[in-house]
Formats: sequence, C-alpha cells, structure tokens
Amino acid sequence: MFLEELAEILGAEVRGEGNIIVSGVGDLSNAESSDVIYVLTRHNLEKAKETNASAFIIKAELAELADRPALIVKDPKLAFLKCLEIFYPGEVFEPDISKGAFINETARIGNNVTIMTNSVIMKDAYIEDNVIIYPNVVIEPSAVIGKGTKIYPNVVIGERCIIGEDNIIYAGAIIGSDGFGYHDAEGKRYKIPQVGIVRTGKRVEIGAGTTVDRATLGETFIDDDTKIDNLCQIAHNCRLGKRCYLSAQVGLAGSCNVGDDVIMAGQVGLADHINIGNKVVILAQSGVPNDVKDGEQIFGYPARPIRESHRINAALSQLPELAKKVANMEKELNKGSEPET
Amino acid sequence: MFLEELAEILGAEVRGEGNIIVSGVGDLSNAESSDVIYVLTRHNLEKAKETNASAFIIKAELAELADRPALIVKDPKLAFLKCLEIFYPGEVFEPDISKGAFINETARIGNNVTIMTNSVIMKDAYIEDNVIIYPNVVIEPSAVIGKGTKIYPNVVIGERCIIGEDNIIYAGAIIGSDGFGYHDAEGKRYKIPQVGIVRTGKRVEIGAGTTVDRATLGETFIDDDTKIDNLCQIAHNCRLGKRCYLSAQVGLAGSCNVGDDVIMAGQVGLADHINIGNKVVILAQSGVPNDVKDGEQIFGYPARPIRESHRINAALSQLPELAKKVANMEKELNKGSEPET
Amino acid sequence: MFLEELAEILGAEVRGEGNIIVSGVGDLSNAESSDVIYVLTRHNLEKAKETNASAFIIKAELAELADRPALIVKDPKLAFLKCLEIFYPGEVFEPDISKGAFINETARIGNNVTIMTNSVIMKDAYIEDNVIIYPNVVIEPSAVIGKGTKIYPNVVIGERCIIGEDNIIYAGAIIGSDGFGYHDAEGKRYKIPQVGIVRTGKRVEIGAGTTVDRATLGETFIDDDTKIDNLCQIAHNCRLGKRCYLSAQVGLAGSCNVGDDVIMAGQVGLADHINIGNKVVILAQSGVPNDVKDGEQIFGYPARPIRESHRINAALSQLPELAKKVANMEKELNKGSEPET
Repeated sequence: MFLEELAEILGAEVRGEGNIIVSGVGDLSNAESSDVIYVLTRHNLEKAKETNASAFIIKAELAELADRPALIVKDPKLAFLKCLEIFYPGEVFEPDISKGAFINETARIGNNVTIMTNSVIMKDAYIEDNVIIYPNVVIEPSAVIGKGTKIYPNVVIGERCIIGEDNIIYAGAIIGSDGFGYHDAEGKRYKIPQVGIVRTGKRVEIGAGTTVDRATLGETFIDDDTKIDNLCQIAHNCRLGKRCYLSAQVGLAGSCNVGDDVIMAGQVGLADHINIGNKVVILAQSGVPNDVKDGEQIFGYPARPIRESHRINAALSQLPELAKKVANMEKELNKGSEPET
Repeated sequence: MFLEELAEILGAEVRGEGNIIVSGVGDLSNAESSDVIYVLTRHNLEKAKETNASAFIIKAELAELADRPALIVKDPKLAFLKCLEIFYPGEVFEPDISKGAFINETARIGNNVTIMTNSVIMKDAYIEDNVIIYPNVVIEPSAVIGKGTKIYPNVVIGERCIIGEDNIIYAGAIIGSDGFGYHDAEGKRYKIPQVGIVRTGKRVEIGAGTTVDRATLGETFIDDDTKIDNLCQIAHNCRLGKRCYLSAQVGLAGSCNVGDDVIMAGQVGLADHINIGNKVVILAQSGVPNDVKDGEQIFGYPARPIRESHRINAALSQLPELAKKVANMEKELNKGSEPET
Repeated sequence: MFLEELAEILGAEVRGEGNIIVSGVGDLSNAESSDVIYVLTRHNLEKAKETNASAFIIKAELAELADRPALIVKDPKLAFLKCLEIFYPGEVFEPDISKGAFINETARIGNNVTIMTNSVIMKDAYIEDNVIIYPNVVIEPSAVIGKGTKIYPNVVIGERCIIGEDNIIYAGAIIGSDGFGYHDAEGKRYKIPQVGIVRTGKRVEIGAGTTVDRATLGETFIDDDTKIDNLCQIAHNCRLGKRCYLSAQVGLAGSCNVGDDVIMAGQVGLADHINIGNKVVILAQSGVPNDVKDGEQIFGYPARPIRESHRINAALSQLPELAKKVANMEKELNKGSEPET
C-alpha cells in the first residue's frame, strides 16, 4: 500500500514523500524497512530515527523534526491501532454451524452465527446474531450470548447467565460458577445454593482463565466497556461499573461494589462488601480492607493513599537506622539523668 | 405456596397470617412482594422493614418486632438456604450416557450416571453411581470418581487420581497436574517424575480454575468437607484437614500440612513444608513463612498474630512523623551537649 | 528387580547385599519394605533408618553409616528420579490419530503423532513428529507444535503461536490469548489488536491453568529449559531467558525482560517493562516495581535486597515499642527544657 493510500484511510496528512510503499506496522524495538511506526514524544522520536521504519505516524508539533515521510494525525496511538487492523486483519471465519458442534434442539440460534466443532449449546440457550464461538466451548442451559460476541475456546458460560453484546470472552474463562457460600449448623456444613446469575453489559472483555461467580440471589454484574485481564476472580454478587480496567490476577471477594472508570493493577485484592467510588486507582498487589472514595489513588497492604504509602516506604528504609538512633539517644538521656556526683 | 406450607417443610412456627402466598426468596437489597427474606439481627430487621418482602424468617427473640408475617426458626440462615433449594431447584438431568461422550471400553460406569456430550472417560477409569459429568470433561486413565460427585464442564481429573463421594468439582478445575519438581545436574535440567496421585475425601468442593497437583510419591490429600474456592493452587504432597475453607487465589507450596477447621482468606500464600495447626485463621494476602500453632489467627506479609500486625500497621501510619521527631530530638540533644561557652 | 540390576542401570556401586529384591521407590515419610529411598544428608540418614526401606541410595561419604544395603552414587537425587522413571513408567500411548479428533484438512501432521479424541486441530496448523495431544485440546489456525512436545487436556494454543521441541504444556494452560491493551480516544474505548505471537524454546514447561498472552507486535518469548508453574500470568511482549523457574501464581505485566537462571517464588508480581538480570532470586509474594541487577536476591512489597527486608521486618516487630520510647523521651526532653523555677 502506498503511504498516501494509508493516509486517506486514516484521515491523515502526508508530510514528505507519499508514494512510498508501506506493508506493515512496527514498534520502536522492532521495525522492518517497509513498516510504519508511531511516535508520541520527542524522546520516542530520537529512538524512532534509529529504526529502519519507512514512515512515522506523528503529531503535527513533532512532524518537522522527523527525518523521513510522516503521517500527521491528532492521536498517533489511535492511528497505530487502526493500522494494525488494516495490515493484520486476523483469521476470518465464515458464519457456519459446524456439524461437530452439539446444539440442543431447544436452543435458539440467531443469524450469521459461527459455532465451531465440539462446542456444546445446551437446552434453551440463546445465541444471538453474529456471535462467534470457537471450539470446545460449553454454553449451559438457558444462557444468553448477546449479538456480536466472540467466545474463544474452552470457555464455560453457566446456566441462565446473560452475556451482553460485543463482548469478548477469552479462552478458558469461566462465567457463572457457584459463589463460595456455606453455612455450618447442627454439626454439618451446608452449601448455600447459588441461584443468581452473571450478567455483563456491552463491549465487556473477560480475560483468559478468569472466573466470575454467579450471585447467591440476583446477579453479579459487569457494566459496559469494562475490561478484565487474565486469571482474575470476581466473586458472587459483585457489581463493576463502566469502563473499569482490572489487570491480571486481581481478586474481588463477595458483594463488592465498584464504581465507573476504576483501575486496578495486577494482583490487587478486595475484601468482601467493599465500596469503591468512581475513578479510583489501586496500585499493584494492594490489599483493600475498607471503602474507597471517588478519585482516590491507593497503594499498599493494607492500602493507603499513594503519597502516604510512599512516605511510609521511604521511612521504612531508614527504620533499622532509626531504631539505633533512638537506642543511642536513650543511653545519652539516661546518662544525663544520672545524679551528678 | 402458602406460608404455612413452607413453615411445615422447614419445621418453623408461623407468627401472624399463615395463608399468604410466598413464591420466592429475596435479600435485604432486593426482595419482591411475594418473597420471604431472612433476618439475623435487629439492625437487619430495620432494613428488612423497608423491603416489599411478604414474610420474614427470623429468630423467636426478634419476632415480636416484625411488622409482617414471620416464620420463627432457630437458625434463619439454614432456613434460608433450604428455601433456596425449594424455590430454585436448579437444572435436573435425567441419568444418561450421551452418545456424544467418549467412553473407553475398559472404563467402569456405575448406576444412574450422567455423562454429557463430549466428555472423555479414558481407559480403566471408574465412574461410581449417581455421578453427574457435564460436557467437555476429561477423566484420565484409571481415575476414580466417587458416588454422587458432580463435575462441571472442562474439568480435568488426572491419571489414577481418586475423587471422593459427593464432591463438587467446578468448571475448569485441574486435579492431578504434575508437581513442580526439577533437578539440575550434569549441566542439564531433569524433570522429577510425579508418580503420586491426588485423593479427596467426602463432600469436598474444588473451585473453578483451581489446580491441585499430584504428589511426587504418595498422595496430595484433601479431607472431608473442605471447600476450596476459585483459582487456588495446591502443590504436590500437600495435606489439607477436614472442614477447611480456602478462599480464592490462595496458593500452597509443596508439602504443606494443614490441620482441621482452618480458614484462609483470599490470596494467602504458604511457603513449602509449612505446618498449620487446627482452627487457624489466616487473613487475606498473608504470606506464611513459618509453622502456625492451633488456634492462632495471623495476618501480614510476613504473617504475624493479628493484634501484633494491627499494632504495627497503626504505628506505620505514624512512622514518617516519628522519624521527624527523632531527628528533632537529636538536634536538641546535640545542642544540649555542645560545650557551653 | 534385584538391587544389583538396578545398580547396573543407574551406574551405581552396591554396598552390602546386592541380590535383594526392590520393587518401588519411597521417601522418608512413606517407604514400604521393598522400596529404595534416597538420602542426602546425615540428618536424613537417621530418619531413613527408621523406615522399612530395603535399600538406600546414598553418597560414598555417608554409605558406611548405613544400616542396610545401599547404592552408592554421586548424585542421589538424580538416581532417585531415574528410579521413578524405571518403576513408574506412566501411561504409554501408541501413536494414533483418534477418529474422534477434528483435524482440518489443511493441517500438517508429522510422524508418530498421538492426537486423542475431541481435540481440534484448526486450519494450517502444523503438528511435528512425536507430539502427544491429550483430549479436548484446541490448536488454533497456523500454530506450530514442535517435535516431541506433550500437551495435556483442555489446553488452547492460539493462532500462529510456535511451541518449541520437547515442551510439556499442562492441562488448561492458555497460550496466545490477547494481550491486555486498550486506548481511550474520542470518548470511546478501543481495543489494540494483538497481532503478535507466543514462541517457546526447547524443553519449556507451562503449568496447569497458566496464561501466556501473545505480543501486540512481534513475540512473547520463553527460552529453553524455563519452567513455569500453575496459574501464572505472562503478559504480552514479555521475554523470559533460559533455565528460569517461575513458581505458581506469579504474574508478569507487559514487556518484562527476564534474564537467564532467574528464580521467582510463588505469587511474585512484576510491574510492566521491568528488566530482571541473570541469576536473580525473587522471594514469595514480592512486588517488583524496578529493574533488578544480575545476581540480586530480593524480597518484599515493594521488593528490597533480602537482608535489608529482613532487617526492616525485624525492626517492624519493635516499631510500636519504639514509638512509645520516643514519646517518653520527648516528655523527658520537654521536662528538661522547661525553665527552672
């Protein structure tokens, strides 16, 4: 593709030679000679100049410093991801219900659906239009898969759970396993039946191997545009707001209530019944035992406001020294307080 | 169902109008007008009064404060879970070996067994009476599944492992993967063959995506009534006692020995060869590097007795301030010790 | 088998009676009367003497203290693992492509390959010689499985990923899920297409339920002889060197670069873009926010050099006491500084 053709697709302005050929996308650490790469900062630009990339995708204010043809756009990262889609369109599957799929006769299947071999659609399940289901997926009875959703191999969607439109459920995710609830009485351990469901909004993504438990009663709910990474645990009756990011291995205990635009970094843990406000940021491995207000940024085990945690961590490095100082001062004072002879 | 009918099933006493209709179970945050809800405390009762629930399940001592019909029982939570079973019996499957299941001719299958499509029972496996196996499960050679056990989709039970009676194995759990054992010698890395098994007692539950490794020799063992939540890791040669609770994402390194009635909250980690006594409680995210005695309650990284950890955490909040104070005192003392002129 | 026969296979010297029968391998906690057990230290030897084992595998320097027949070898642990292979050869499968496997007509299958029932080999995948694939595995389009690799049930190998020779991929592992990358622009959340792959070297092992994300561009790479335990998360664009050990539930955020011979204990977390040198050791549950140099040993949250972390932890135990002391000293000083009357 000529650079000027790419510019037209992206709505970009060409600076320099437009009739060079570009055939792929690279990055700062790895670009071949016909690749375009994107540049966000002046610092990036210096690194970019050392690559073999044939053209840069860049903001207007940096463009004049470029040493080769460039596409000028407002948001180079957005243009970059559009280029990825253009040059690497990925596997495309024709809508097809494989003969190797097992579809219960009571299941409802929409239009343009793809269900690959060995996937199992159990009774009364409803697969809406344009859904793609990879092999070895199990959709349990009465579950609903919303329009345009893509489900990778070996996913399990539990009984009656409702997956929204345009979700992506990555391989091995388990949606709708039972919540962890028991009651010890009369010398016996009873399992509390988990009769609720999991429901997701639009454009939700659930990472590989992540588990989302059904509610005891009612629903565990994940709202629009929330993205959950791999191997996370969302316990029964949690509610997650819109546009949250949960990084890998995050764990939420039961009945947590998370606002909109919340970011949790890797391996964060929330105790049960915690309320997290909007726009909260929780740094990696933090343990959160209490509610968190809108806009707070927290870190640590137990989690504290980031600045406070940083101050404590800095002071901790000096703690052994501090203990020595205090011991010395104590000696000094005791000396001073000795009766003069 | 009339409230008085429900009372009879539960063995409860009706207070107030018994011939009202109840058709479901609610909770404090969500109850429809024909629901019963359970109330444990006076505080709950005030909240309960704000719901549309048609009746309460309640202890005798709170019953007279109720503003509507009530079922009086000794243990309202137990009555609640029985109600869940009554009103939401869940999917029932007729015993059936699906034609889409793959059952090796040498496998032994008991009576009243359900094996759904696409599940694979390998050679010499033994599936005892009343077992239910969902789709896409793999039972490896010579494994045994005890009477009445339920296995959700995409579970793998490894070679020769022995699952006890009335277990529930949730979707995607992996029982009997190899222990993590290697030996570096002669400039090469050797894998230590893991020839032991996993064995579970009665009424054990293993959460979605949880992994339990087989023993190097002998067995990894989980005793009766122990419940393990999602995404936990139980390494080779661990032994877990009776009636333990392991919350999500807990990890036990190799050869840990855990007593009875132990509770581990989410994301706890145990080093290898740790002995945990009976009735130990380990709070969330704790890291346990040493043995823990009967009845201890611990918290922290590294874990300490809960009170000690709380005292340290409280003091930590003051640490930066403390460091300043010490610096000031030092100045003061140095001034004091300067020779007078 | 006679002990002297075993000696010949192991290249060991027999001390004492060589024509006794050995029929299995035991360990210090569990040995039957015809078992051999291995002994590494004098302390082990005392315990070993209390077992019923019929013979010891032992180093020359300890052999004369043994109270029964012994095999003298340089490396008793290596001899032990060879014995495990001899006495417990494990399930052997004849190379066979099951009729119940689904193999796309465009897939290439090497010689002596085993593909068990219900596994799905998608288009243009290449399964090299001597590969063993258990049931319910999905090999996505254009993926390559190297010679001699063994893949346990319910594994997913993503599109175009390249698994090296003699790998072992344990049950439920997910290789090649999408990296966690999004871009918020124009009031919308865009998914960054993940068009790279995962590639592994020789003799790599990936634990049960572990997830390895494909690179955004280029590859996520795991080098020769690196062993990864269960439920780990390796994010997009990470590079792991040779002979690393990652224990269970370790998580690496995106673009980490890990050297050779690195050891990470359980539940360790690395922030994104972290560089870890060669021969680094990271203790359990550590959180690593910064680069780590060759040979460093670190511990803690955030991680510090092990000695420093230990000193801080020791001082922490005294912190509440220290705070009291400082408060007392302050009083003392204030008293001293009061004007004398």
